[in-house]
Amino acid sequence: VIMAVPVGAVGALAEQILPHMKPGAVLTDTGSTKTSVVRDVAPHLRDDVFWVPSHPLAGTEHSGPGAGFEALFDGRYWIILPLASDEAVVTRFETYITGLGSVCERMSPEYHDKVLALTSHLPHLIAYTIVGTAVDLETQLKNDVIRFSASGFRDFTRIAASDPVMWRDVFLNNDAAVLEMLQRFSEDLSYLQRAIRWQEGDKLEALFTRTREIRRSIIDAGQD
Amino acid sequence: VIMAVPVGAVGALAEQILPHMKPGAVLTDTGSTKTSVVRDVAPHLRDDVFWVPSHPLAGTEHSGPGAGFEALFDGRYWIILPLASDEAVVTRFETYITGLGSVCERMSPEYHDKVLALTSHLPHLIAYTIVGTAVDLETQLKNDVIRFSASGFRDFTRIAASDPVMWRDVFLNNDAAVLEMLQRFSEDLSYLQRAIRWQEGDKLEALFTRTREIRRSIIDAGQD
Repeated sequence: VIMAVPVGAVGALAEQILPHMKPGAVLTDTGSTKTSVVRDVAPHLRDDVFWVPSHPLAGTEHSGPGAGFEALFDGRYWIILPLASDEAVVTRFETYITGLGSVCERMSPEYHDKVLALTSHLPHLIAYTIVGTAVDLETQLKNDVIRFSASGFRDFTRIAASDPVMWRDVFLNNDAAVLEMLQRFSEDLSYLQRAIRWQEGDKLEALFTRTREIRRSIIDAGQD
Repeated sequence: VIMAVPVGAVGALAEQILPHMKPGAVLTDTGSTKTSVVRDVAPHLRDDVFWVPSHPLAGTEHSGPGAGFEALFDGRYWIILPLASDEAVVTRFETYITGLGSVCERMSPEYHDKVLALTSHLPHLIAYTIVGTAVDLETQLKNDVIRFSASGFRDFTRIAASDPVMWRDVFLNNDAAVLEMLQRFSEDLSYLQRAIRWQEGDKLEALFTRTREIRRSIIDAGQD
């Protein structure tokens, strides 16, 4: 049984469905914050149901059953959190996930939340912020920002079109890791801001060259 | 004659080529910061050459002659800065641009730089920053951030793979507008940071809902 709802609703859903599950069934979820999901589901667990939280790193800015498509999971990572589950159950679950086209990877809830804070949660927060900054501009400038949304801003608006309730829950439930990454990000942004103010082109160019290599690594890792 | 080089190099290039241009020729450029380009080209202008700066809002993270493709300009805006040029010359230039598939739009250098600061320059600066933040993580976490680069971060790495020299020059030459937009962005980010820290889900959801509408406007404007 797969619970695919905003992470803030997983606890209540687990409470509702667990009493009706068959003995020996496997329960999982698709939430983007695992520490909170593990915490919220825990009180409702049964000894005869296997609980294996997971998180498919797949999807678009669209939500709901209509947002699925055949190749959605092909070649994408699906993170499995084995917790204290029986190894045989986890392996069976992984076989199922692999059958959907995904690549399985095991993690602990804490490590998962740290990685996702930087790869997914912080980028979304920033995209929401910059698009929100545009919303607040005086009318003519705002209209022109929309009309002339060049590459860059346009990509951010796509990210910032994701489901509001789902993302509200992500930030409320991975607050510690997000705030830590946000702190690092803000420091780095201040460094660049200062470089622009003082016309330190060498610092800008050095950073821009390093970030280019990260892109190369991602393409090499087949995750483009 | 189209000067397509990093904006920091436009002045020197104009100095080199202007003496060799035919009387009555039109000179333009493709730079992303127009106030600086107008300033840097001014000392080298000739009375018998028409200077019409411009900026095509098209392109990818790739640079150089090999980065072109047939549909590159189709339906994309190409901003024209008529300055004090003869109207007949500007119209002739616009006919040429329209022939490439682009949609022409006139602006002043100052207004152009303000719009672009938000639609293009700030998003690039932020993408460079967040990818740079990842570069600085401890090794294992950094490797996993690359491996599991989910939607969001992956989009940012694409933006952050753009040409370092070109973007260094953009920030050095549109510093005032970028710093102003960066200030607004930082205030907005602090607001969300505080909302996460104090678990104010209503504020997050309200902003995330508003930004969704901006995406809709861009799709409606045919600039997706």
